[in-house]
Amino acid sequence: MASYLVTGSARGIGFEIVRQLAAKPDNEVKTIFATSRTENTRLKELTQQYPGRVIFVPITVGDEISIRNAVPSIETALADKGVNGLDVLINNAGIVGWTHATEMSMADLSDVFHINVTGVHMMIQAFLPLLRKGDQKKVINISSSVGSIARQPIYKSLPSASYKVTKAALNMLTVVWAQELSEEGFTVLCQNPGWLKTDEANSHADLPVGTGVEKVLENAKKVGQEGNGRFLNIHVPGWEKNPGLHQYDGKDLPW
Amino acid sequence: MASYLVTGSARGIGFEIVRQLAAKPDNEVKTIFATSRTENTRLKELTQQYPGRVIFVPITVGDEISIRNAVPSIETALADKGVNGLDVLINNAGIVGWTHATEMSMADLSDVFHINVTGVHMMIQAFLPLLRKGDQKKVINISSSVGSIARQPIYKSLPSASYKVTKAALNMLTVVWAQELSEEGFTVLCQNPGWLKTDEANSHADLPVGTGVEKVLENAKKVGQEGNGRFLNIHVPGWEKNPGLHQYDGKDLPW
Repeated sequence: MASYLVTGSARGIGFEIVRQLAAKPDNEVKTIFATSRTENTRLKELTQQYPGRVIFVPITVGDEISIRNAVPSIETALADKGVNGLDVLINNAGIVGWTHATEMSMADLSDVFHINVTGVHMMIQAFLPLLRKGDQKKVINISSSVGSIARQPIYKSLPSASYKVTKAALNMLTVVWAQELSEEGFTVLCQNPGWLKTDEANSHADLPVGTGVEKVLENAKKVGQEGNGRFLNIHVPGWEKNPGLHQYDGKDLPW
Repeated sequence: MASYLVTGSARGIGFEIVRQLAAKPDNEVKTIFATSRTENTRLKELTQQYPGRVIFVPITVGDEISIRNAVPSIETALADKGVNGLDVLINNAGIVGWTHATEMSMADLSDVFHINVTGVHMMIQAFLPLLRKGDQKKVINISSSVGSIARQPIYKSLPSASYKVTKAALNMLTVVWAQELSEEGFTVLCQNPGWLKTDEANSHADLPVGTGVEKVLENAKKVGQEGNGRFLNIHVPGWEKNPGLHQYDGKDLPW
């Protein structure tokens, strides 16, 4: 009977999260707020397929006013269903900057930080009153093993300085929120979704997007407060000791 | 005979770094570029005490144009001394935001990131041509053990979300630069200076500012490329197992 809010849900991992949540039984998932800058065709089809169950709400994660404006409409939609609170917030929206540090401009770094970290921060802060009234009190921040400082030796060849820096910052932000909200029964965590085949440009990635998202949602469902402040990995049988960049052994990632 | 550039040198740790460097023998330290937004009285006295040895150059770390404008004047000053390159860049300038995540505004987080991370990034990028021509090729980023994600359990009570997030981001930025420049013989590292009595507000801190800075400069002098990409702690005898927030055992800090 849980309610979910997912950011960046027009495509990629976010869209797949909404799609899989929508297909779950009503006694497990009641309402999904699919948020994105605009509602594209694919998302519109999904909201039409699940009327009143998948609800599109416009949120531009980098824009504080857009975030704050979304809160009362989501509060009203929840009240219409007889519930007061939001259960699970999945901060999925994020961007990747593809440059080495040597070529990364101030604007590159600021822009990526603004979406990947400040935007997530503002989402948590703005929806905190609704999350406090929710039954599950879960905040799942979609991070990346590429944001693990300890694992950088294996990501040396990946030219994405801003992504690495902002995901490390997101990890710390997650831990800070986890600590501040732990006594209220919250579970705030970082989740590595795996390197997923989200589109044609990612066709050489490790896993179908459906596989990674299935594991993310399994974790989101079963995790309790013991997961608070942790950096969860997915577990995909056969990928525990992948000699490539990513391993999916289900063990917490190092910071 | 080394040349140093120190940011944020008008007060606190930065001023003490310049003061201690200035007092070292000429065959060890040749020139110190003391940079800051403006030259305050204390810094002016120091440049007058060591004319031509301590050189004030205005740099506002959050302002890209101010950083870029400083490069040619430092290049000229080095050329006047018959050297082409800058040896050691100490990115010390930083700010602390004192709020919990629950009260931290988007502007709080962005502003602190802009100085503590983007500013450091721009300093390294702008001075890279001069550092490449230097003999030592060292970049010392003043971080903090408070930026260690792994150590957050002991910093839970410290209400400084933006500082924690930005120092973790700085640590990742340091590692990314360390990797990109390792084949050119660079040493780029994070240095925890300890919790220092920099002013009256910090009179309850662990160590006199002189003690922490002495250890930072010892590390900066002796470190070679084996220090590239690492998170160095200071070593202060007697403080290895301090039961308080900070330990100074000289061992690398965890990320």
